[in-house]
Amino acid sequence: MTKNLIPNKKDEPAKWYTAVVQLAELSDYGPSKGTMIIRPYGYAIWENVQKVFDEMIKDYGVDNAYFPIFIPMSYIEKEKSHVDGFAPELAIVTHGGGQKLEEPLVIRPTSETIINASFTKWVQSHRDLPIKLNQWSNAVRWEKRTLPFLRTTEFLWQEGHTIHSTHEEAKAMQKYAMDSYAKLYREYYALDGYVGRKSRMETFAGADETLTFETMMPSGKALQSCTSHDLGQNFAKAFDTKFQDEDGEEKFVWQTSWGLSTRSIGGLILGHGDDNGLVLPPRLAPKQVVIVPVKSNERLVAFSNELKATLRQAGIRADVDDRDDESFGYKLNKWDVKGVPVIFKIGEKEAADKTVTAKRRDTGEENHFAASDTAQETAKLLEIIQADLLVKSRQVRDENTREASTYEEMKQILAEHKGFVKVFWNDNSEIEAKIKEETKAVSRCCIETGKKGTDFYTGKPATEVWLFAQSY
Amino acid sequence: MTKNLIPNKKDEPAKWYTAVVQLAELSDYGPSKGTMIIRPYGYAIWENVQKVFDEMIKDYGVDNAYFPIFIPMSYIEKEKSHVDGFAPELAIVTHGGGQKLEEPLVIRPTSETIINASFTKWVQSHRDLPIKLNQWSNAVRWEKRTLPFLRTTEFLWQEGHTIHSTHEEAKAMQKYAMDSYAKLYREYYALDGYVGRKSRMETFAGADETLTFETMMPSGKALQSCTSHDLGQNFAKAFDTKFQDEDGEEKFVWQTSWGLSTRSIGGLILGHGDDNGLVLPPRLAPKQVVIVPVKSNERLVAFSNELKATLRQAGIRADVDDRDDESFGYKLNKWDVKGVPVIFKIGEKEAADKTVTAKRRDTGEENHFAASDTAQETAKLLEIIQADLLVKSRQVRDENTREASTYEEMKQILAEHKGFVKVFWNDNSEIEAKIKEETKAVSRCCIETGKKGTDFYTGKPATEVWLFAQSY
Repeated sequence: MTKNLIPNKKDEPAKWYTAVVQLAELSDYGPSKGTMIIRPYGYAIWENVQKVFDEMIKDYGVDNAYFPIFIPMSYIEKEKSHVDGFAPELAIVTHGGGQKLEEPLVIRPTSETIINASFTKWVQSHRDLPIKLNQWSNAVRWEKRTLPFLRTTEFLWQEGHTIHSTHEEAKAMQKYAMDSYAKLYREYYALDGYVGRKSRMETFAGADETLTFETMMPSGKALQSCTSHDLGQNFAKAFDTKFQDEDGEEKFVWQTSWGLSTRSIGGLILGHGDDNGLVLPPRLAPKQVVIVPVKSNERLVAFSNELKATLRQAGIRADVDDRDDESFGYKLNKWDVKGVPVIFKIGEKEAADKTVTAKRRDTGEENHFAASDTAQETAKLLEIIQADLLVKSRQVRDENTREASTYEEMKQILAEHKGFVKVFWNDNSEIEAKIKEETKAVSRCCIETGKKGTDFYTGKPATEVWLFAQSY
Repeated sequence: MTKNLIPNKKDEPAKWYTAVVQLAELSDYGPSKGTMIIRPYGYAIWENVQKVFDEMIKDYGVDNAYFPIFIPMSYIEKEKSHVDGFAPELAIVTHGGGQKLEEPLVIRPTSETIINASFTKWVQSHRDLPIKLNQWSNAVRWEKRTLPFLRTTEFLWQEGHTIHSTHEEAKAMQKYAMDSYAKLYREYYALDGYVGRKSRMETFAGADETLTFETMMPSGKALQSCTSHDLGQNFAKAFDTKFQDEDGEEKFVWQTSWGLSTRSIGGLILGHGDDNGLVLPPRLAPKQVVIVPVKSNERLVAFSNELKATLRQAGIRADVDDRDDESFGYKLNKWDVKGVPVIFKIGEKEAADKTVTAKRRDTGEENHFAASDTAQETAKLLEIIQADLLVKSRQVRDENTREASTYEEMKQILAEHKGFVKVFWNDNSEIEAKIKEETKAVSRCCIETGKKGTDFYTGKPATEVWLFAQSY
């Protein structure tokens, strides 16, 4: 647990990432390919995310439920583009209770199909609508190259699934989910990004439209952070999910789904971390303050514990590190690696004067205040750090967004800087596939419509502004 | 959604159970064998359980984490009695990403083996101990006969896993977990039962000692409601989980595990339900009060909404049922089936006089109070209902506990009444297996030791008092 073990972030971003994940004790490798153990320090971040987002969706009338992890293969096959999209990534159970199964079972890669089968059963009349469900669960997609949090065979997530009597109401739900994600990312993860619509090639398998929140990592690669889908009536038609409207007419339901996964923690690590390790935004940090006495003697530990009690009473997640087998320097180092937003350094001077020396993890800056002001000064400091991290993230996003008017310009930007390339473009899957092959970049999302410009690839008139980037 | 569809509980307990589960919208059947969809109303009960128990274990220093659902078959095989116990119930993944896997993966039936492999990696010194982890997750056991909640192929649960440097500390953890379960059952589920030690035959596969909380259902069958295991050093030896103690000596860790699952909701349904459907204890009820205006006119709905606001402000989970397409009688019926503890019946008289008529689900008794007293009167009423349900459950337990001094007496009691049969017994797996074959009853737990008596089966001296019963 020492920052000397951490490679330079800029020079060796991949090694930096895996070192930080391990040294900060966020996760460890599972025994089977591409699986991940989420250790308590990493899981506590996810619990904080769950608390915030769960409240947001419940405010909109979404209820939690739980659907089986086993999906009959025949379900997956019902919606054509869905099976085409997911077939290569499926994990299959063929044996149960010592016997070969009659029908192989898919471990859910996502739950549209199994949930639609229930919707079909539960809905008769327009009075049964809307149904707005969410589940917090695990899901499995067999990935070729894996990375802790960012891409794992098994991941944790929430998946929202809703059905509505009108397309308008479904669109409002799709938008509410994306607005909530954007709020969560900006106000809690302290990561800014772009909200926009996915291209046809990048749209979710089975959806009419996918909204996405795309963040820019300091490496110049984009990260798709969460998505919200307008499923139209595609699954409704595949599963015959109908209702009788007020006029007695049978209609297919309109549907959405939306998800945010533990991948977002990968974004958090990449987005804020530095050469000394993790940097956590206070609102998601498992420990917001760690109080480290210079020596673990009775006097300093007692004063530290008083400060801890004051902070906890003010609702601040605080701990004292009073281990007696580690030096003061080692401890500071350890909590730096773990990205704790604020460290209180408590020496004899602080104990005598009843003052606090509070070091910010993000800037290294030290603040001094009277012990009697601890609660309010710390709360203020945490809010400042939270806000500063967002500003920094916005700068990264903006500095890494460059305009191109031709494909040549795009290629040059990608070669020199990576980052987002902003272009006028007419969504075209064939062209996008070619660009992907030649530059490893794909469109991330459409961020503006109704403008006048020239398609960077074809030179034809275009009205939509798109971002392209390489991505995780 | 009508109570007329519910069979008589006493005469047709199995049909009663499945009808209530469906009509109260607690769960529905999944598409593959023995799986269950937990609908929002059922899941909300589980969320309430999670909230309470999560706090209890965090108070004891237990952290949440997450381990992969896929366990290599070779791990399961490392602890001999463990694999013997679980082999017949395993679900196996043989294919992933379109290819046959080199080593088949087991879907976790429980996570001792995979967690032990990590413990081995994470622990070097006594300073790394204890490690106290818990995970909220799904697990899969291939069951032959299944019933919603009570026995399902996939279930949700928490599984706690801890390692310690001394046996004493591990025993204290095992006891804390069981004490917390007993508190949760009595104070939240309002179900009383017996805490005791499992017989050798019934001990968890891989444990030295299993503690259990056994509840008695009105049908006369016992329900194992949760368990807490002293795993001794069995998994530590199988996985070589060692630490250096203060003297530099290498030692195996001492270990516990403990779990509570969605099965407990089956106990809740069986334990309190009646011929009109579900009866929920207020502390776990998703809705504690539903306010039903006699007619959905503006005046009554406005008054109902005022009452709802008052209740919610007091932290009471309250809703108004103002649907205009269902009659007053149908609504009362519906909320009775769903077991809502208190229904406010709001007619013109109540609105004019600013009074409330509050009907208890458990007794049918009606209470009247001034609208201005709503918050305190309702809070009091909910506490009374909670307490009364526990008293009733204790009566069921006590009335269904009968002493026997010979095997003949036991058989007679089981034939006439079922219930718990209390006997002096010397734990003996061979005898227990015979009794199981002949009576379908097994030992549930040992509830007293150090007494003087005569073994009901062998006639030899015995010092332990045991309960036998048929069970779910």
